Amino acid sequence: MKKACDEMAHKDTFRGYGPYEGYEFLRNAIVAHDYQARGVNIAADEIFVSDGAKSDVAHFQELFSADARVALQDPVYPVYLDTNVMAGRSGAFANGQFAHVIYLPCTAENNFAPALPKEHADIVYLCSPNNPTGSVLTRAQLQTWVDWALEHKAIILFDSAYEAFITQPDLPHSIYEIAGAEKCAVEFRSFSKTAGFTGTRCAYCVVPKALKLTDGAGNTYSANDLWMRHQSTKFNGVSYPVQRGAEAFFSAEGQAQTRKAIDGYLANAKVILRALDQAGLMAYGGQNAPYIWLKTPQGVTSWDFFDKMLNGLQIVGTPGSGFGLSGEGYFRLTAFNSPEQTQKAAARIAAGLK
Amino acid sequence: MKKACDEMAHKDTFRGYGPYEGYEFLRNAIVAHDYQARGVNIAADEIFVSDGAKSDVAHFQELFSADARVALQDPVYPVYLDTNVMAGRSGAFANGQFAHVIYLPCTAENNFAPALPKEHADIVYLCSPNNPTGSVLTRAQLQTWVDWALEHKAIILFDSAYEAFITQPDLPHSIYEIAGAEKCAVEFRSFSKTAGFTGTRCAYCVVPKALKLTDGAGNTYSANDLWMRHQSTKFNGVSYPVQRGAEAFFSAEGQAQTRKAIDGYLANAKVILRALDQAGLMAYGGQNAPYIWLKTPQGVTSWDFFDKMLNGLQIVGTPGSGFGLSGEGYFRLTAFNSPEQTQKAAARIAAGLK
Repeated sequence: MKKACDEMAHKDTFRGYGPYEGYEFLRNAIVAHDYQARGVNIAADEIFVSDGAKSDVAHFQELFSADARVALQDPVYPVYLDTNVMAGRSGAFANGQFAHVIYLPCTAENNFAPALPKEHADIVYLCSPNNPTGSVLTRAQLQTWVDWALEHKAIILFDSAYEAFITQPDLPHSIYEIAGAEKCAVEFRSFSKTAGFTGTRCAYCVVPKALKLTDGAGNTYSANDLWMRHQSTKFNGVSYPVQRGAEAFFSAEGQAQTRKAIDGYLANAKVILRALDQAGLMAYGGQNAPYIWLKTPQGVTSWDFFDKMLNGLQIVGTPGSGFGLSGEGYFRLTAFNSPEQTQKAAARIAAGLK
Repeated sequence: MKKACDEMAHKDTFRGYGPYEGYEFLRNAIVAHDYQARGVNIAADEIFVSDGAKSDVAHFQELFSADARVALQDPVYPVYLDTNVMAGRSGAFANGQFAHVIYLPCTAENNFAPALPKEHADIVYLCSPNNPTGSVLTRAQLQTWVDWALEHKAIILFDSAYEAFITQPDLPHSIYEIAGAEKCAVEFRSFSKTAGFTGTRCAYCVVPKALKLTDGAGNTYSANDLWMRHQSTKFNGVSYPVQRGAEAFFSAEGQAQTRKAIDGYLANAKVILRALDQAGLMAYGGQNAPYIWLKTPQGVTSWDFFDKMLNGLQIVGTPGSGFGLSGEGYFRLTAFNSPEQTQKAAARIAAGLK
């Protein structure tokens, strides 16, 4: 990044407006490391570099009509729902839910795997590894979703921002590891959680050229063309030094450093899971995700548990009900801290919650 | 920026997610230099830092309903129109124009100053200094627009990305120099053209707390609150090193360097204007803007003139018709080149177009 800053300071190496979809050096690195290395056939012109997966996820719904039906996991990363509400696609709000949104409950009862919608849906948001539950969809589960989407002409918006945390070798990192996904799915990826880019800002999404969107009259359009049009009209690309920073993540040194950081977070997750077990609490996730999703004790709401953790143990977490109705009775902890702080918190949990 | 990159590499100075609206150090610098220094009363919590004025201008229309009437200058920066078309707000396209859009012709006949709309408009895009015509709205003209907007409950989206090019001391740099503007106007600013940030990406918009938006039932909402909600849901802020780069623009050294660059571009504009005069062509702008807007010779269309310039003189410019119907018969040249290249082009124009 510092080298890129120097380039920007000299006439011969200065770069003005870059490609809307990101520089080829970065898109090529993404394709090679995140797809070809896993045997997945994605091309550089199917990659769109952006300032954040949040921006991509928030804006992609603009390609759909106002009456498109949205299905999403419950609990869920709030941006999926909120942006559809803001687009006027959600219907009336009553009893904590929106009338036109299809909620797919993910609880301990179904092992946090959403069932296929009973009604027709045009758009389905799937997040795996999941925020907040820390669960991961298996290859077979994802194949079921892809087959369903192809049959029902639905589009899957697949958020795999946490794929780098997957430790089990048989779990899919990309939806394009599943046959047919290139015809029904868009994938969102981020450098935030994999490479500490939360404040540096870089991400990308994959819009396959085989993906077609169909309008009400049955006409089909290339989703790749439409997204390029969206990005070129509403965005001027990501800062050049930032794209060089993202490219460096794919270098041998970058891969080694970030692998070490992620392994550290996964070790933290183990420490937290052990403490919760010692405290007699049921907990999920943390093995292939940075999130630990714990069941609050019988009769204790998410917010009551929040107060208990904060005031009793001086530990901050996120009440599950903030992620949706099915999050009530759960609580999210994250592994994103130092080993020392994590050990300290774990000791308090193990001792204090007994 | 390099210092900020170093900070990101150390645990004690690392910065993760920043404020959605931008760091206070940058918003304070913007307020001090761009507003308070001109006697304009804008506060730091009315500033929203973004990755580009294009992004802000493209997304701000989302706060309005699908049936809001849009008025815009013709010719115009295409993003204003295109984003409203994409939002379904434009009506049917026929004879080169959209049925529900109110076009405000800006030609040599009205000295490139748009007349007030004859129909009701909810949103008016004004760009001053103007891209592509290079014209600037005077204080009196802008007061007329502000008074009209207040009377008709219209919102002015004021794009002043080129304000640093204003040389005449009596011309307004900000719409907030006009009485009442804080109740009817949003202002868009960019570091791209003032500080060479085209590839570095940083900009900001001003949404005054006094600005209210009214819904169909007559309820009013704070535009500042709505925009904060938009940004916090769909955006995660600008890269920290980039914000430090923008802050450096406001340092004494940054101001001196960028002033020198802008003065250089304005000198280029003079050279081009002189050459066009020698070639017997009418030309406008270039005095308070980086753009020169020339009238093509009688009977020569914008595209014919483009071919003539390209094939005859090896000079590339932009056909005026690309900016709207009223741009036909005009051609845009820019001052954004080196003095040497500009001199070379000017010599060809003066000699070749006679």
